[in-house]
Amino acid sequence: MEKNKLEKLCINTIRTLGMDMVEKAQSGHPGLPMGASDIAYVLWTDFLRYNPKNSSWANRDRFVLSAGHGCALLYSMLHLTGFDLSMDELKKFRQWGSKTPGHPEYGHTIGVEATTGPLGQGFAMGVGMGIAQAFLAEYFNKKDHSIVDYRIYVICSDGDLMEGISSEAASIAGHLNLGNLIYIYLDNQISIEGSTDIAFTEDRTARFRSHNWQVIEVDGYNTGQIREAITEAQKEKKKPTLIRAKTHIGFGSPNKQDTAAAHGEPLGEREVRLVKERLGFPPDKSFYIPDEVKKFFKELTIEKAKEEEKWNELFRSYKKKFSDLAKEFTSRKNMDFKSVPVFPAEKGMSTRDASGQVLNYLASQLPFFVGGSADLAPSTKTLLKGFCSFGPNQYGCPNFHFGVREHAMGAIVNGIALQGNLIPYGSTFLTFSDYMRGSIRLAALMDVPSIFIFTHDSIGLGEDGPTHQPVEHLMSLRAVPNLTVIRPADANETAQALRLIVKRGKPAVLVLSRQKLPVLDVEQFPVADGVEKGAYILKEGTGTPEVIIIATGSEVSLALSAYEKLSKNGIKIRIVSMPSWELFEEQPEEYQEQMLPAKIKLRLAIEAGTTLGWQRWIGDKGAMIGIDRFGASAPGDIVMDKFGFNTSNVIQKVKELINKR
Amino acid sequence: MEKNKLEKLCINTIRTLGMDMVEKAQSGHPGLPMGASDIAYVLWTDFLRYNPKNSSWANRDRFVLSAGHGCALLYSMLHLTGFDLSMDELKKFRQWGSKTPGHPEYGHTIGVEATTGPLGQGFAMGVGMGIAQAFLAEYFNKKDHSIVDYRIYVICSDGDLMEGISSEAASIAGHLNLGNLIYIYLDNQISIEGSTDIAFTEDRTARFRSHNWQVIEVDGYNTGQIREAITEAQKEKKKPTLIRAKTHIGFGSPNKQDTAAAHGEPLGEREVRLVKERLGFPPDKSFYIPDEVKKFFKELTIEKAKEEEKWNELFRSYKKKFSDLAKEFTSRKNMDFKSVPVFPAEKGMSTRDASGQVLNYLASQLPFFVGGSADLAPSTKTLLKGFCSFGPNQYGCPNFHFGVREHAMGAIVNGIALQGNLIPYGSTFLTFSDYMRGSIRLAALMDVPSIFIFTHDSIGLGEDGPTHQPVEHLMSLRAVPNLTVIRPADANETAQALRLIVKRGKPAVLVLSRQKLPVLDVEQFPVADGVEKGAYILKEGTGTPEVIIIATGSEVSLALSAYEKLSKNGIKIRIVSMPSWELFEEQPEEYQEQMLPAKIKLRLAIEAGTTLGWQRWIGDKGAMIGIDRFGASAPGDIVMDKFGFNTSNVIQKVKELINKR
Repeated sequence: MEKNKLEKLCINTIRTLGMDMVEKAQSGHPGLPMGASDIAYVLWTDFLRYNPKNSSWANRDRFVLSAGHGCALLYSMLHLTGFDLSMDELKKFRQWGSKTPGHPEYGHTIGVEATTGPLGQGFAMGVGMGIAQAFLAEYFNKKDHSIVDYRIYVICSDGDLMEGISSEAASIAGHLNLGNLIYIYLDNQISIEGSTDIAFTEDRTARFRSHNWQVIEVDGYNTGQIREAITEAQKEKKKPTLIRAKTHIGFGSPNKQDTAAAHGEPLGEREVRLVKERLGFPPDKSFYIPDEVKKFFKELTIEKAKEEEKWNELFRSYKKKFSDLAKEFTSRKNMDFKSVPVFPAEKGMSTRDASGQVLNYLASQLPFFVGGSADLAPSTKTLLKGFCSFGPNQYGCPNFHFGVREHAMGAIVNGIALQGNLIPYGSTFLTFSDYMRGSIRLAALMDVPSIFIFTHDSIGLGEDGPTHQPVEHLMSLRAVPNLTVIRPADANETAQALRLIVKRGKPAVLVLSRQKLPVLDVEQFPVADGVEKGAYILKEGTGTPEVIIIATGSEVSLALSAYEKLSKNGIKIRIVSMPSWELFEEQPEEYQEQMLPAKIKLRLAIEAGTTLGWQRWIGDKGAMIGIDRFGASAPGDIVMDKFGFNTSNVIQKVKELINKR
Repeated sequence: MEKNKLEKLCINTIRTLGMDMVEKAQSGHPGLPMGASDIAYVLWTDFLRYNPKNSSWANRDRFVLSAGHGCALLYSMLHLTGFDLSMDELKKFRQWGSKTPGHPEYGHTIGVEATTGPLGQGFAMGVGMGIAQAFLAEYFNKKDHSIVDYRIYVICSDGDLMEGISSEAASIAGHLNLGNLIYIYLDNQISIEGSTDIAFTEDRTARFRSHNWQVIEVDGYNTGQIREAITEAQKEKKKPTLIRAKTHIGFGSPNKQDTAAAHGEPLGEREVRLVKERLGFPPDKSFYIPDEVKKFFKELTIEKAKEEEKWNELFRSYKKKFSDLAKEFTSRKNMDFKSVPVFPAEKGMSTRDASGQVLNYLASQLPFFVGGSADLAPSTKTLLKGFCSFGPNQYGCPNFHFGVREHAMGAIVNGIALQGNLIPYGSTFLTFSDYMRGSIRLAALMDVPSIFIFTHDSIGLGEDGPTHQPVEHLMSLRAVPNLTVIRPADANETAQALRLIVKRGKPAVLVLSRQKLPVLDVEQFPVADGVEKGAYILKEGTGTPEVIIIATGSEVSLALSAYEKLSKNGIKIRIVSMPSWELFEEQPEEYQEQMLPAKIKLRLAIEAGTTLGWQRWIGDKGAMIGIDRFGASAPGDIVMDKFGFNTSNVIQKVKELINKR
């Protein structure tokens, strides 16, 4: 078959497959797959380097469909190019138990590099991937041995560009001169509410140029232009590229092309037939792949596998010349670190300060431990001292400056975590975790080892006042599935928390104080084991306790200070430090019962956050010192005192519990 | 005194006041007040229209300090220009109980138009204020009677511009041709981690021009240039203006100017003296206002009060000619609406559909009821049919198209709500409430009547899968202080919820289903009263119930369907619908006890969201059908069934409760 004709046939196969998947599911988004078939074809055949038979090849190009609603396109490409995604799975699009869910899910479907759907996340994760690539290239590549030279390709939509997170991410990517980013923007002038003219008339080309991107405008149906543009993009080493491709949503549909109706619902049986007729496809057949197309992609699969073979050859040579580095490369994450620092009990120290010291220790042990803050490093104590800063053309450095861009920071951390070698953290004040919840949720959903460090964790931060004082944040983060939240009570719990977070390699949030806290004596308290188990007994007298005080973070020292006075009053108290609900819930029931015996009903929880949720641990007879309103601006110790976080209130609450019994 | 010299003296008074406030508090941000004193002086003397003696004058210009950390500047200006903010309050900066908290708080300090501090929020609320102004101008202004012609002035910083929300807001403001916005950007090249060069090198001028803004670059210490720029900005009617003012953080400080050290901590006693010496101020005096300066501002106060007098005169004439409109203008919010629609019980209807009908009804009754969606109106059902869309130069329309910009939408809704006349709503899917939590929190903190409508409220949305299926969101919103969250069970609860939300005029979240739900018969069930009280008995047999089932939203009908079978099994069940925790918690204890008698310990909660928090209502002996993991992609009814939201599971759980007793 003539080359041009075959190309067209392949493209229309992609187009009809996407349409058929949505039609069969009676749910989904046909508009994007139909509109972007030509681009996907060019990308997956002529440019993307991958091995369908080894989806985890280290130097594969990364492809991210930021406009995840168009996943029928991605699944079609994975199937056609020979990934282990069967036609049966395409037919089970959006059905229970299938490998083809309604938006792409990392870890669920082979070849899916990131979970996308919430708009802008893929765009920003791509930047994280670009950062990771640049870091590793700097670290591993040697003359004539560029073993890390993959690129990041992203397809994004109007919606992605409208989201603020993409502006944040574009700004930092341009700043960093990330030439390894090639983004294709489907400029189809349609959004769900109608023409983009109703809300999105900015000059996108000028906007991306202002962010130091190369912008190339193409016709999304001129494969020659698309090829040229991608080639140009590959040549540009100092700037990310945005290929602005004029496309049509639902391209090929006689009645629905260029309408919002093509975006998010099946075209309907009649229209599907019309499309097929127009494209010269048999209207009665669904999921139809012409033999020539099958043959073409079969050959492509073999061709693509050779990409890895070529690289393997290069890597063998690399191994000979740089055996240590090669070993480090293949062992993936270098996770050897000796036990974390132990802090002496005598002095007071904020947990953010302790965290800073431990982060520095970890960085000294782990070459791939990287991170930074959304322009708050001096306050979040996250700077790795003595290490350089990752910057434009200075990519071998572990200190990141994210700028005041929390949301992009979250997604970038996720993008770095997706790489697999690196252990990334991002940091800001706890109250600003609100700005990046979209990304935190995705970390949890993808189950990647993103570390989020949030300091200034309560009204205890003081003068900055209610806008900066978290109240509901801690509990709101605990509510996110598959996210481990740890709020350590002191410097030593902090060290153990960080050790555990790195070792576990799961999405985690570390919540830290601004204010100084007494340091627990590790000789006296089983801190390491205690943190690992999420909750542990810090102090109790002899005999069965009458009252259990459960506290977290900065309120643990308050509980301890009340302990002495209560004991003097002859009240038998147990103090439980509970740095992590999630870790405690993972423990066997026996351990949980040991810490919080069912028969001991008198319980007081102390936490400078919302009381919502604490009934889980204090039960019907329990009480709580918490805060269910916004804070106030004043020095931290005064605010804490005014809101009842003081010894006399603890004592009073305990006495009330006993009297009510 | 010579004019130039007096001007300088005034400016340096502002400069030293800000510095002294921070120094006395030993906490705060001197860098911005010192850097922006000249700009503030020009703005408050020559341009801003206000009456210090009537801070709520309807046609006052709005001033928003988006970089809220610089609030010492704002407090100084309020004091100097004659607002009721005493020198004593300036001296109590950041102290318990003062009117001068660490970031500006709306409703707490006179003359503060918006609570700011979380960066970008003020920027975006300003756009909401501009939208409100444009709407009201269109509605009320008549030839020669422009009674609404105020402008919105915003001072913003590098941090504001880095935040994605400001890109979103700038894009929509430029799209809407909001010539009433005059933003002054303090381009001081310093952020907390150091020079902005480390993370923020984009071409800001080009960026704002790409968003259809006029950009004027000035020297922030050349008062002539500043005046010219603001005058130019006032002349530009079709574009918002960004005045990019080159400034120096900590201007005037010999050792700390242009350093990050000047940003967020006191300069120190020695440096404060050096600044005063340099500026020719007595180094031993603090909070010093030279007599000439006092005199100048005293006269200014009188001058400024005349602005309102002039307007009052205009309004008197307006009143004569357009008495109805004038009445509508002064009565502020027109809140007269008859009872909301009642839906017949026979048919199934999603609560989003019911909400759509009620919104349309409200719009037909309330001319100032406005809102829209972040490009999801066809799905969130928020379009007001038969009404026009607010667009560039078409400002009299209640339908807003926010674009895919959730965060800016939230802040814009807040900015509109701050105006006072309008009742604004914004809408998206519940899962994307994550993208706008920063703004939702501010609505709650400011206690403004922002209405947030979130549809697709659980895994029940089906095929879109876990990225789109909220799990933790409902509880995370309940955790926000001062926010009323309502999740109605059916069309009639939805109608009552909306009625209540509008009547209460408090920040509220309405959570709605995508899927159809049976409609409750209002003849049979006390829906109106029930919603108002947050929880009510929907069904029960005779005698004391053995088990109480508490359900919300779509799970109420599930509870009802289990009721019949359980009753047939001889189990005495009470079904409580609990649309709103917050409203229920507002009820007297007796009512709460009546609904959930302490002695009935066997309780089952059903809600398609996280179980965290529900122990508050089910207690130690209770059980719950909830979801503590991410959802899955499949048709909604299948997902619900697989996750245990089915009658047989409800029955089983009830039986387990009884057996365990």
